[in-house]
This record gives sequence, C-alpha cells and structure tokens, in this order.
Amino acid sequence: MNDAEKNIAEKFNVSTLIWDGKALKLIDQRKLPFEETYVICRSPEDVFEAIRNMVVRGAPAIGVTAAYGVALAALQGKNMADISGFKSYLLSKIELIASSRPTAVNLFWALERMKKIIEGKNNYTNSLSSDVLTEKIVAQAEEIEKEDVKINKAIGDSIFRIYEKSIEKYNILTHCNAGALATAGYGTALGVIRSLHSAGMVKNVIVDETRPYLQGARLTAWELHRERIPFFIITDNMSAFFISQGHVDMAIVGADRIAANGDTANKIGTLAVSVLCKNYSIPFYVAAPVSTIDLNTENGTSIPIENRPDDEVRKIMGNDVIPPYMPVKNPSFDVTPNEHISAIITEKGAIVPPFSENIKNIF
Amino acid sequence: MNDAEKNIAEKFNVSTLIWDGKALKLIDQRKLPFEETYVICRSPEDVFEAIRNMVVRGAPAIGVTAAYGVALAALQGKNMADISGFKSYLLSKIELIASSRPTAVNLFWALERMKKIIEGKNNYTNSLSSDVLTEKIVAQAEEIEKEDVKINKAIGDSIFRIYEKSIEKYNILTHCNAGALATAGYGTALGVIRSLHSAGMVKNVIVDETRPYLQGARLTAWELHRERIPFFIITDNMSAFFISQGHVDMAIVGADRIAANGDTANKIGTLAVSVLCKNYSIPFYVAAPVSTIDLNTENGTSIPIENRPDDEVRKIMGNDVIPPYMPVKNPSFDVTPNEHISAIITEKGAIVPPFSENIKNIF
Repeated sequence: MNDAEKNIAEKFNVSTLIWDGKALKLIDQRKLPFEETYVICRSPEDVFEAIRNMVVRGAPAIGVTAAYGVALAALQGKNMADISGFKSYLLSKIELIASSRPTAVNLFWALERMKKIIEGKNNYTNSLSSDVLTEKIVAQAEEIEKEDVKINKAIGDSIFRIYEKSIEKYNILTHCNAGALATAGYGTALGVIRSLHSAGMVKNVIVDETRPYLQGARLTAWELHRERIPFFIITDNMSAFFISQGHVDMAIVGADRIAANGDTANKIGTLAVSVLCKNYSIPFYVAAPVSTIDLNTENGTSIPIENRPDDEVRKIMGNDVIPPYMPVKNPSFDVTPNEHISAIITEKGAIVPPFSENIKNIF
Repeated sequence: MNDAEKNIAEKFNVSTLIWDGKALKLIDQRKLPFEETYVICRSPEDVFEAIRNMVVRGAPAIGVTAAYGVALAALQGKNMADISGFKSYLLSKIELIASSRPTAVNLFWALERMKKIIEGKNNYTNSLSSDVLTEKIVAQAEEIEKEDVKINKAIGDSIFRIYEKSIEKYNILTHCNAGALATAGYGTALGVIRSLHSAGMVKNVIVDETRPYLQGARLTAWELHRERIPFFIITDNMSAFFISQGHVDMAIVGADRIAANGDTANKIGTLAVSVLCKNYSIPFYVAAPVSTIDLNTENGTSIPIENRPDDEVRKIMGNDVIPPYMPVKNPSFDVTPNEHISAIITEKGAIVPPFSENIKNIF
C-alpha cells in the first residue's frame, strides 16, 4: 500500500487488504461488523484458503488477493537456482489459487496477468534470475492493486454520464457488497454510491441483507455507517415491498462475471432484484471493471455457478438456524439476463444495450 | 380437542393448539424446530401476549386462538351476577385481543363471531345467566376450531379442480408457513400440498426460509419433514434462481387478508414470489378460507401493514446478526396485486379472475 492508497483507505476507513512487501493482511470479512481483525497470509496456500473460506470476497478483491498469492509464492521460492524449475513451481501455485472459487472471472484475469509476467514475451524470462523475476512479480501484483482503486474511482465517475450532477436525490437499492471490501478500495456499486453521495445525490441506500452470508447487512452497512451515508437494512424478501411503494429510484449491483452478451453473474438474489426492477420499470445497473467482462463466455448459461457448503445456509454467524437433518441448497450466484440491465457502468463509461455490440466496441 | 381432531393431529404429528376446557395450550412456534414446548394461556391477557409475541401465528390459527381468548375471559368472569356487566367485560377483552396484531383479518372475523354470541339476536342474551352465556361462548370457540380443520381439508381438495388427479408430479414453491401450525390443523397452502402429496403428485417442495422470522425454514420444513414430503430449504433470494432454471411448476402461499378485488396481504416476500412467477409464466396460487376475504376492504392499498420490532431483523433466534446502531426496517406483510394471482383456492372451490366479480359470487 503506497501513501496515496493509505490516504484513500483512511478517508474511507476501510482497508480490505494491506501488503507490506512480505505478507498480505486481509481484514477478516467473516467477522465484520462485530470484530475488526486481520488474517495474515504468508504463502499461496494461505491465500487459497482465505479466498475459499471467504475471509476475502468480492470479484475485484479476489483478483488482487490472488495476484499477491503469486507474489508470496515467488518470495517463498526465489532461492531456486533453476529458473525453469522456479517458473514451473509458480505456475503450479497459480493452478492452486485458480481452484479456490469458480465464478468470479477477475480471479482468472489477475492470474493470467501474473502468468504473462512469469512466462514473459518469447520466454525472455528464462534468462532472468529467480530474484529478478520475483521483483517483477511483486511489482505486477502491486500494480494490479493500485489500478483497481483507480478503476473503481473511474467507475464511480461514470455514473455522471447517466445522472448529471444536480440537486436531485435518489433512493438506491443495492444487493450484497460491491464496496471497498469487495475491491482494493472504494468499491464498484458502492463506489458509484460514494460518488453520487459526494455530489449530494443520495437520499437513502436500501441494503439487502443478502442471505446466506449477510454481506449486505454486515459489510455494506458497515461501510455506509462509517461514511455516514444514510441507509437502512432490509431482509432480501422486502425489496419488492419498497420498490412497489415507490421507495426505490434505481438498483446498483456488482458483478462476478459478465458474459460477452452482457448476461451478468452476481451474488444469489441479484436476479430477483433485476426482475423486480423490470416489473416496476426501475433502472437496474451493474457496476464493474472491464476486467469482469469475459469475452470467452458467450452468454450466461456457460458461467459456472458455485454451490457453497450447506452449513452457510444452516448456520448464521456460527449459530444453528436449521437443524442438520433438513435438506438445503446453496447456489452462490445467479445470472441476470442482459435484457434486465439498463447499463453496465465501467471505468470506460456506461455500456448500454445492445450489449453484444457495445461490449465489443469497448475492447 | 375432540377425538376426531386428536386423530388428525396425531396423523399429522402437529398440534398447534390444544384446548382442555379450562386452558389453551399453544405450541411455542418461536422455539421450533429445536424445542417442542407449549405455552399455557389461562386468560385473555395470556392470549393477547401469545398472539402479539408470535407464540402462535398464521391467520387462521390466530383466529381460533382469539376465539379461545374470549372463552377464557368468559370462564374467568362467569361469577359476575350482572349479565350486562359481564357482557361489557367480555367486549372489553375482545377489544384487547383485537389490538394484538393488525393485518390478519381472521382475528377480527373470529372475534366478530364471538361478539355475535355475546350480544345475541335482539339482545336475548340479556335474559341468560353468566354461566349459561359462558357455555355458549366456549361452545362457539370449539366450533370455530372444528370448522377450521374441516375447511382446510376442503381447501386441499379444491386443488383437484385445477389439477386433476394424475401421475404427474410437481415442484411446488411455498413461502412462510401456511401449514398445520398456521391453522387449527392441516393447513391452507400446506394443506393443498398435503392433498397433492396424498395423491402422489408432489415431486419436491421448495421452502423459502422466510426471513426475518424463518417460518419457512423452521415451521414449514418441520411439518414436511414429519410427514416425509420431499423438500429442500432455500434462502428467500434463491427462488428466482430455481424458478429461472425451470425447477418450479407452481407457487402456493397462504393469506392474511384478501381484499374484495382479490389483492392479497401475506407474509413479507410473497409479492416478490408473485412477480417472479408472473415474469416466468408460472401459476401463483393463494390458498385461504373464505373468512380471509374481507369485503369491507376494497383493495390492497387499504390493508394495514404491520411494522414489527427492529430486533426481529437484527437478531436471528436470539443471536445478534446486525448491531443495534444499524438502521433496519421490518414491514411484516406485503400486498400481492390480484393480476399476479392465478386462483384463490378456498373451501368453496377455486376463485379465478375476474376476482371482484367471482369473489362477490361466492358470498
């Protein structure tokens, strides 16, 4: 974390991850808002566990964390004299980290960037020492982190291409947490809300609690509370009530993967919000960096949907709410079809329908 | 509880309420499925508290409980020599019980029936002794209980006017608990599911957990588990996923109040299910006794919606999930507009659109 980012983190009172050159400190998102403790990752295995067990979550934050996982692997293995052995070792650690979670594409995107550094153009890295390659790897991870904060700020600014700065104030519904905690800082959907709030344009944020893991109630509310942005928490099944009563002017969510046609995988429950917005003619926005768009995924049907452990539904914050003999299901994501989406707000501006065409144009 | 009802209760392994002629035992629905304990009501004040604190819930069960609350008042006050003083006393206890919860119309319907017994045609009850009037009051409460079980069985049978008995099996989504626990026995929406299951027509029941109070996860699942009807529990925000994947053939819910035009107030989250069903062209049924239809309520906008305490959202089964300084909202019901409803399944058959006309015809 450099000084500029420390300032941002201090301003927003949220440090999702802190890199000190040797280890990665991750705020333990499983324990927020009741405890603010950090988990220290010193190896790629630690990073794998932290992503899999949701110490860290949110597509962009997973990407940055994965990149640092490769950096940690390099720091651990840099004494290897044989550069090609070192490279094979690094690629095996990339494989490990890639297997932590299947849906968020930023994980694979970040690992792909690390892989390019390791392989180098025309295998030129074969002529480097392990030490020098390690320096390049660490620098690349730091670069990905730095970029992410900048990109999020740019995503936030993009909202003003749709809503000109004015004295208008909006009620905004959001689902899950696409905030500073889901990124290296500032957030995507919550970044948009931060930008609107800075412009005095937020009346109230309506926060879906987001069962089973309560990212809305625990994480989004925690961020909004710290920044004094007005909000209230509802259970997920209340959004229809507030939308039908005219208390919601727009919905903004993040994304774990956006297909080439605009279909968007995001936290379970996002699809329901999109259907409600469509039914009540309310704009529904996806806020995400361009790196979330996966051109190799033609449409939503080919996005892998992770099924998480049953106990995440059966227990809430460690306490049983459903006995173990009751059958439950726990799909962790759903896919919102492109026709429910008013615009995808990226650091390169707002992408509007027709998505297949306009997504192509942005690349 | 007479023998026939005991048999029904034993068959279904669920005794929501047990009247022994002196006291009303209510299964404590706040503690299910982890504890099966009963709360004993010996006075109208006990009944008021039990309804308000959700020891008992579900529109028909609230109605039956309220009727027994009047019976308990009569038993307590029957030593009053002055019949008109006794009647005033009883009416004041009816006022008390009526103030326990605002949305379920069965509460007011049952109390209205008790009031008619107390007042009597042309005030003929003025010539009775308090003892004799008490006997009539107790008999009326017992009659309301007995009727409710019969009515629910008839509601269950009405489904076969829409789905003829066949080898077809259906995946059925339900929200909240409109089961034996929400009634004097058998259930309304869950009664329909019981009837379909008896005919071998249930493939799977998809149970919304129904935050904040978890009536689905705790109560509906408990009933289905005991009867070995196949089911699984989902968080409320997962229904869109299962509906969009083609895993739901119909949705069935209960009702707390149905307006003269068919608009239906039911547990918060019902509206969202109805919008999803509409969007994906899946039938959406309301199952309720005719007593739930309130001809004095023209449409859904005039149904009072209860706001329950914030702590029901902040705590889950007694454990904090949201710190006390975080603002939350807790509307307990929402209104599904009549155009989302495929049919209202009653003991007098299935009411189909146009509802205003066909509801009038049934009375």
